[in-house]
Amino acid sequence: MTDITTLESIPLFSETPHDVLEELSRHLVEENFEAGRCLFKEGDNATALYILLEGVVKLTVNNTGDQQTVVEMLHPGDTFLMAAVLTGKPYLMSAQTMTDCHLLSIPSQLLLDLIRQEGDFSLHLLAALSNQFRTMVRQIKDLRLRSTAQRLAAYLLELSVEGGGRNRITLPYSKRLMASWLGMTPERLSRSFAALRDQGVEVSGRQIHITSLAKLRNYCGFNEKLDLSERTVDELLERE
Amino acid sequence: MTDITTLESIPLFSETPHDVLEELSRHLVEENFEAGRCLFKEGDNATALYILLEGVVKLTVNNTGDQQTVVEMLHPGDTFLMAAVLTGKPYLMSAQTMTDCHLLSIPSQLLLDLIRQEGDFSLHLLAALSNQFRTMVRQIKDLRLRSTAQRLAAYLLELSVEGGGRNRITLPYSKRLMASWLGMTPERLSRSFAALRDQGVEVSGRQIHITSLAKLRNYCGFNEKLDLSERTVDELLERE
Repeated sequence: MTDITTLESIPLFSETPHDVLEELSRHLVEENFEAGRCLFKEGDNATALYILLEGVVKLTVNNTGDQQTVVEMLHPGDTFLMAAVLTGKPYLMSAQTMTDCHLLSIPSQLLLDLIRQEGDFSLHLLAALSNQFRTMVRQIKDLRLRSTAQRLAAYLLELSVEGGGRNRITLPYSKRLMASWLGMTPERLSRSFAALRDQGVEVSGRQIHITSLAKLRNYCGFNEKLDLSERTVDELLERE
Repeated sequence: MTDITTLESIPLFSETPHDVLEELSRHLVEENFEAGRCLFKEGDNATALYILLEGVVKLTVNNTGDQQTVVEMLHPGDTFLMAAVLTGKPYLMSAQTMTDCHLLSIPSQLLLDLIRQEGDFSLHLLAALSNQFRTMVRQIKDLRLRSTAQRLAAYLLELSVEGGGRNRITLPYSKRLMASWLGMTPERLSRSFAALRDQGVEVSGRQIHITSLAKLRNYCGFNEKLDLSERTVDELLERE
């Protein structure tokens, strides 16, 4: 049982009729998890769609050894691994809370019924999944075509755009987490920062100063239209 | 204008009522393209969803220089870049025909109307997009956690499973195309084949002999549940 105002605040439900939400609110479950908790593991079967209401969650992949790498960081409003629920196949990623989190879950069967009955809801779901798909494609492009230093440069430029195009930015995560997210070891991240010194990037702890945005864009072939994440593009549109 | 039996043969429409398909068939366009033709470029605006009826298409990403890499190979029944159409954002990949191709296109507006009205169609669309999303996640996992030789090993094992678990396989594409798809240079692919000799992989042109499947699986940490592509899993299920 959840509150209907909670449902109304979730973009996924923005065009779902009030009576449908009222009915839904009786069947959905809200849960709290503390920081550092494993929500599910790669290979588990998907039984519900999760929506993050508060907190930060990381999605990781692991190899058969102990190696783990961060594929995505989730923030409030994000849905989790919809693709596994919709195909009835096991999760491809593991999820762990980075902070205390508040989650809403929609059981699979309820989700399928909603899709069949509510066309506008389906459209929102398709758009959300499309954005997730595009985020993965960008990452593949980054991993295939950019050196580690170029990947770091593109990430710094994205943070700069998010901050309104400023030359000074603050890294939002620890360098250890950043390294994992960018697909490199912490040592490689340090070497990449060192390489960017020649491109005018000055580092002091989590504070970064980019002396020339143009030079850095040129260095990593940054293209605003194709390189910005869906989240950033949507946020920029909202600000307009 | 297209034939209604063509529409009925497409899995995406398998539960769409006959009268809806009849109406649709008046608005959809079939087109032929010869091999080597560019269908659209990264950055173009998406105006229609394409369904491949015959032939093979490659999806590529390019950097600002001349470097290009193959992200996906499409076969009959596959839809193209649904995510761009559903978000109204530019394509993130380019598409080129590898053979003569026969395509069907659904204009964006018609697609949105269908989603709103036909719940079962929406479910099929969500499942198709989910499979595409999962394919991208597997690729990210491969790029992040495996060496080039391990990537090649996992690809050979997938071909073996597709062929019914045999030790002898035939490469379906040229080595040049394979290298690009696996995210490596042709020289690196040759070195990876050389590295796999120690793991019992013998190569003669496009013919491959794997002396021990178990050894190779162990070498690259192959996991059937998580490593097989959605296409292969679906094909295996159909065979059962």
